[in-house]
Amino acid sequence: MPKLRIGMVGYGFMGRAHTNAYLRVPQFFPELKYKPVLQAACGRDKDNVKAFADQWGYASCETDWRALLDRDDIDAVDICAPNNMHKEIALAAAAKGKAILCEKPLSMNTADGEEMVAAVEKAGVANTIWYNYRRVPAVTLAKQIIDSGKLGKIFHYRANFLQDWCISPDVPQGGASNWRLDVATAGSGVTGDLLAHCIDTALWLNGGIADLSAMTETFIKERKHATTGEMAPVGIDDACAMMCRFKNGSLGLFESTRYACGHKALYTFEINGADASIRWDLHDLHRLEFFDHNDESRLRGWRSIHVSDHGGGHPYMDRYWVPGLQIGYEHSFIHHAAEFMKALEQGEPCHPTFRDALETTKVCDALLQSAAERKWVAVN
Amino acid sequence: MPKLRIGMVGYGFMGRAHTNAYLRVPQFFPELKYKPVLQAACGRDKDNVKAFADQWGYASCETDWRALLDRDDIDAVDICAPNNMHKEIALAAAAKGKAILCEKPLSMNTADGEEMVAAVEKAGVANTIWYNYRRVPAVTLAKQIIDSGKLGKIFHYRANFLQDWCISPDVPQGGASNWRLDVATAGSGVTGDLLAHCIDTALWLNGGIADLSAMTETFIKERKHATTGEMAPVGIDDACAMMCRFKNGSLGLFESTRYACGHKALYTFEINGADASIRWDLHDLHRLEFFDHNDESRLRGWRSIHVSDHGGGHPYMDRYWVPGLQIGYEHSFIHHAAEFMKALEQGEPCHPTFRDALETTKVCDALLQSAAERKWVAVN
Amino acid sequence: MPKLRIGMVGYGFMGRAHTNAYLRVPQFFPELKYKPVLQAACGRDKDNVKAFADQWGYASCETDWRALLDRDDIDAVDICAPNNMHKEIALAAAAKGKAILCEKPLSMNTADGEEMVAAVEKAGVANTIWYNYRRVPAVTLAKQIIDSGKLGKIFHYRANFLQDWCISPDVPQGGASNWRLDVATAGSGVTGDLLAHCIDTALWLNGGIADLSAMTETFIKERKHATTGEMAPVGIDDACAMMCRFKNGSLGLFESTRYACGHKALYTFEINGADASIRWDLHDLHRLEFFDHNDESRLRGWRSIHVSDHGGGHPYMDRYWVPGLQIGYEHSFIHHAAEFMKALEQGEPCHPTFRDALETTKVCDALLQSAAERKWVAVN
Amino acid sequence: MPKLRIGMVGYGFMGRAHTNAYLRVPQFFPELKYKPVLQAACGRDKDNVKAFADQWGYASCETDWRALLDRDDIDAVDICAPNNMHKEIALAAAAKGKAILCEKPLSMNTADGEEMVAAVEKAGVANTIWYNYRRVPAVTLAKQIIDSGKLGKIFHYRANFLQDWCISPDVPQGGASNWRLDVATAGSGVTGDLLAHCIDTALWLNGGIADLSAMTETFIKERKHATTGEMAPVGIDDACAMMCRFKNGSLGLFESTRYACGHKALYTFEINGADASIRWDLHDLHRLEFFDHNDESRLRGWRSIHVSDHGGGHPYMDRYWVPGLQIGYEHSFIHHAAEFMKALEQGEPCHPTFRDALETTKVCDALLQSAAERKWVAVN
Repeated sequence: MPKLRIGMVGYGFMGRAHTNAYLRVPQFFPELKYKPVLQAACGRDKDNVKAFADQWGYASCETDWRALLDRDDIDAVDICAPNNMHKEIALAAAAKGKAILCEKPLSMNTADGEEMVAAVEKAGVANTIWYNYRRVPAVTLAKQIIDSGKLGKIFHYRANFLQDWCISPDVPQGGASNWRLDVATAGSGVTGDLLAHCIDTALWLNGGIADLSAMTETFIKERKHATTGEMAPVGIDDACAMMCRFKNGSLGLFESTRYACGHKALYTFEINGADASIRWDLHDLHRLEFFDHNDESRLRGWRSIHVSDHGGGHPYMDRYWVPGLQIGYEHSFIHHAAEFMKALEQGEPCHPTFRDALETTKVCDALLQSAAERKWVAVN
Repeated sequence: MPKLRIGMVGYGFMGRAHTNAYLRVPQFFPELKYKPVLQAACGRDKDNVKAFADQWGYASCETDWRALLDRDDIDAVDICAPNNMHKEIALAAAAKGKAILCEKPLSMNTADGEEMVAAVEKAGVANTIWYNYRRVPAVTLAKQIIDSGKLGKIFHYRANFLQDWCISPDVPQGGASNWRLDVATAGSGVTGDLLAHCIDTALWLNGGIADLSAMTETFIKERKHATTGEMAPVGIDDACAMMCRFKNGSLGLFESTRYACGHKALYTFEINGADASIRWDLHDLHRLEFFDHNDESRLRGWRSIHVSDHGGGHPYMDRYWVPGLQIGYEHSFIHHAAEFMKALEQGEPCHPTFRDALETTKVCDALLQSAAERKWVAVN
Repeated sequence: MPKLRIGMVGYGFMGRAHTNAYLRVPQFFPELKYKPVLQAACGRDKDNVKAFADQWGYASCETDWRALLDRDDIDAVDICAPNNMHKEIALAAAAKGKAILCEKPLSMNTADGEEMVAAVEKAGVANTIWYNYRRVPAVTLAKQIIDSGKLGKIFHYRANFLQDWCISPDVPQGGASNWRLDVATAGSGVTGDLLAHCIDTALWLNGGIADLSAMTETFIKERKHATTGEMAPVGIDDACAMMCRFKNGSLGLFESTRYACGHKALYTFEINGADASIRWDLHDLHRLEFFDHNDESRLRGWRSIHVSDHGGGHPYMDRYWVPGLQIGYEHSFIHHAAEFMKALEQGEPCHPTFRDALETTKVCDALLQSAAERKWVAVN
Repeated sequence: MPKLRIGMVGYGFMGRAHTNAYLRVPQFFPELKYKPVLQAACGRDKDNVKAFADQWGYASCETDWRALLDRDDIDAVDICAPNNMHKEIALAAAAKGKAILCEKPLSMNTADGEEMVAAVEKAGVANTIWYNYRRVPAVTLAKQIIDSGKLGKIFHYRANFLQDWCISPDVPQGGASNWRLDVATAGSGVTGDLLAHCIDTALWLNGGIADLSAMTETFIKERKHATTGEMAPVGIDDACAMMCRFKNGSLGLFESTRYACGHKALYTFEINGADASIRWDLHDLHRLEFFDHNDESRLRGWRSIHVSDHGGGHPYMDRYWVPGLQIGYEHSFIHHAAEFMKALEQGEPCHPTFRDALETTKVCDALLQSAAERKWVAVN
């Protein structure tokens, strides 16, 4: 049975989430030909990476990602380093012929992303970006419903991703814990970190965006930098909002912030069609709400579908327990990892590929440009 | 156009609710032949009844209900006096040939209720008991769904009515405000006051009860009596629960209390059939939840029906505003009053009649007996 | 006791809602000095206005609003005619010294609105616009919470008003039922009809808007005109969206549509402060959701406040029933009418006045301009 | 580092859930001294147990549980065999000095359970019963809140466990998939399978039960037996309900069924105290609802606590992701397994022990006796 020997770069939140996924694929998707193997973990701090490797069962450690890429016993590289490292590592990995599973967003910007797409396509290596929410069963079910045509002509798409962990001015920027607040490392703020998820899902469910108008805001202008210990200007966007027109004629409205008191990870989307509507909320990710105008009129209502019923055909749920018992956030990564293994086996791309994810980066860039220039911007 | 000249006995919470209903019937049900007219209000305290009459527009006042019944210009008597007055007033009203609209519960006990039924039937006067929740649009819709057969064979019925206003031992018993806590005036506690509503709805939706086992509890054993100012034993049940078997073979579970912190008026029922289920909650009375097993399996979910869409056929809603706009608690009384007028016009009984309501009283009595004797009791 | 003799112009949805409110003020606000009296109803169709007057109890009828204004026995005019009539009637009423209660929106546009404000202020007549949602108890409570400072610095305000009744291309424009779809009569589509409510509430709760960027869309380009029977271009906006910056530095996001399948009257707003957040939904108007970051950390959660507890200090609820029992949509009008009577008594303005409502019209106009010109527009 | 070498008996739903838990303990609870090791899986069907062992990573297989117990390289036995096997295996394991982790319920009846308790206590072996719901973070938080005294005097406890998978008469009884419907194997129906969970939680949260009155029902009297292929009488209870009095004076109401259309695994409990109330629902297991009467009166409401915030002190959540991201059903087993390892390390019992679980079995037996004899039964 072929193994896919993973070299993991990074060991933070996403490093743990991806690793957990690899470990569980063989148990919940035993029929897959490829089995992920935790071959090596890589991080700059020797002790930390060793502790991570021991905890999760990696067979070896590296402290230099270039050394990791040089190893012949690594089949695939998983890039969980901060955003500003994605391009360099990906280009090198492609050059070495490694399969690449890269954490989102693809890149710091469109130009970098285009280089990355070119590199993986030229090298012909398997590649994917971990926009994991596509593989939440309720979201996958939403896609199935849309593809079945039940919604009819689409009029509206709205999504937001709201958090509240940056309200305090005492949260520092930079460092291992808060590199997402440091523009040099993250590229942007909520746009690339949170709204990118909303956009990936939207492009998948509702097709391309034609043009948009956006605004961004940095509520707290200075934060202490964890590296220097000094107060420094905040370069990221704390909040963003975007109106847009999709190519299918529907209107889009998007928002993201880290200043919405009471919301820890409120990622919601709603799509209104002529015949039916769908909405979803990450806070209760195992539920999908569905309204069908074709129901008998006096009995019409939003249905709260508990997406836990494999007998009922709910995606991925045949892998787990019994109807009514929910799975969690981490399972979206298990499913993504399993889909990657399956795609390898079938010789198909695993979506979203680098090329797919580039579309999201283009929208993010257009958003940031629109906000900066206060004008409508076409998405190329 | 024939008028129905109302003589109102009592001017408390229910006196106001019924009066408001009479006033609004002509505006929201203009097609009805009979128009209620606020002819006289009656209460023992002359100043209070005068103030009430002025506020609501009654044409005259009485301080003795016997004098009210003696008047030829009264067509119908509305009994909103405390429970221990229902029988005497009703018997006298029937003897005078007045139509009777009596607040629930029918009577202090089954024996009294039987007398009352006999009296109104012998006199041939129109009669009804204000179990108003039948006329909440969502509850009426539930009845329609059940009658349509959509639920299939019924397995379970559960209902509860939970409040929290008696938790403090400082609430007195007796007097105008708290006669519901005085057993001599109320007859029983939550059983007759709250659970009686649940039972009336249950009998209407699910048919008769065969037998039951119950328990009651009085958590606070002594309260100051408002009349004497002295501490006195509490004779009512503070809480009750009941298991039962319906005649159709389904199982029932009922509970009521005034000690459920956080619930002001949580009246809920749920009915599970082989094919579909329904549930409702008074706290959001304009919604009905409905689950249909015959929906496409991957799209099954509890529907939250916003019962506000007259275009969709929701009962009573064509009388009001536009879809999506909710009506409130008081409208259930408007509908009941309108149904009484309509029944008069058609020469039909207005359900629940005294005879219908007697069934609820029998269940309440069986409940109290079961709790006292700690045994199963058949409902006769 | 002074009476306020009302002359009602129009007898549609709003004519009924306002009339119902006038009728109920004396019963639920008996302490008020001024009592509304239904003196005359006015409409162009003689039979229809007569039927309306009979149903609701108006003492007389007029078929010409100028004749109504000429009458000395009319103290106040209620303008429920379509939007394009507001200015002419209001100017004439002011000239006659009548108090004016005008249905929203104030006017077809800012210029008309300024004329109207000047006229009522010059005449010194009492005036108000029926932005009724301010008087939903849960919304009033939201205002009280904000005024208490519990939210801290505000970061975000978002609101939408979603309906679905225009999805079918078979809905005609124009005529008594659908004048809201005819741009010549309505002035705009969802912007003036629905979003104006969201904006009025927002300005009241969160202060003025500095600038905005907006988009509008007309999904169905042609509809049959009810007057001519011919297909005609649709001039209104079917949907609109707006990003804005409030003067207090917070970001706003607004949307309205009549093409959101499954939503009948989903008016929601949410406001996120540094310390707490609030949200509300018209579909369950008796509830307010509240999140307080200052709660003990492990017990923090969104509270669903059932705004029905007068003992607990919930606004307006001491007028009605007992805790837990909800009121409905129509009560917001009763409260507005009562506030108007109270303001008269106290010699104070009743908000929103014409001047207050002009601010909302300015935002609507800026929105339409921004959408037309695809650029950010300052609100003057 | 000491290993706890597990011998797993059974490989069905619970065998998988427990195994998954053992695998993940070292990753999510790395500080624990004891590490579970998947030493051997045991089942009667050689091929099936081999497939299970391969999928999950057991080092070896057995087809006879006695052979498993004979092995010196097994430190602990996990009993996931059907209920009628629990006693025999547990007695033998205790005799061999193995630690025992046994799936619930403890035993077929009280007498068997007493033997089991005596055996493990005499042998001095570590023992626990997998009443896993205690370790759902929201349920653990409920326990912490209760222990903090926030609820005050308790008045009411209510719980139910509702499913709907037996409505069809075509579901067979017996065999590997449906042994829970075969009374000879399961001992009872929903009482031991579902209500036992409710009772375990209740005893933990609210203390002992004094006496009870119950009813049971078997809706479908005959089902095909999977072993014989013949129709056979159904011996289990399809549904049960129970009223009871707790020793602390509070009232209890419990219900379970497999005939509640629309509910897949609706396990809910609610507890009402004088000062505060709590409720929980397995369908959204990451949320706890909490009402605090001591909140400012106009701001009181049920809080929906998203129990995902380790910074906020939510139990177990520091092991996982970031606030707002939910875990699932399976994690309750991980936590139970981790608590077992921790208890071993500390030389403390891991609750619920066999002795703790015997209390639940006694309640179940009293329930079945009460239902059979139609009378109140004291719990000894």
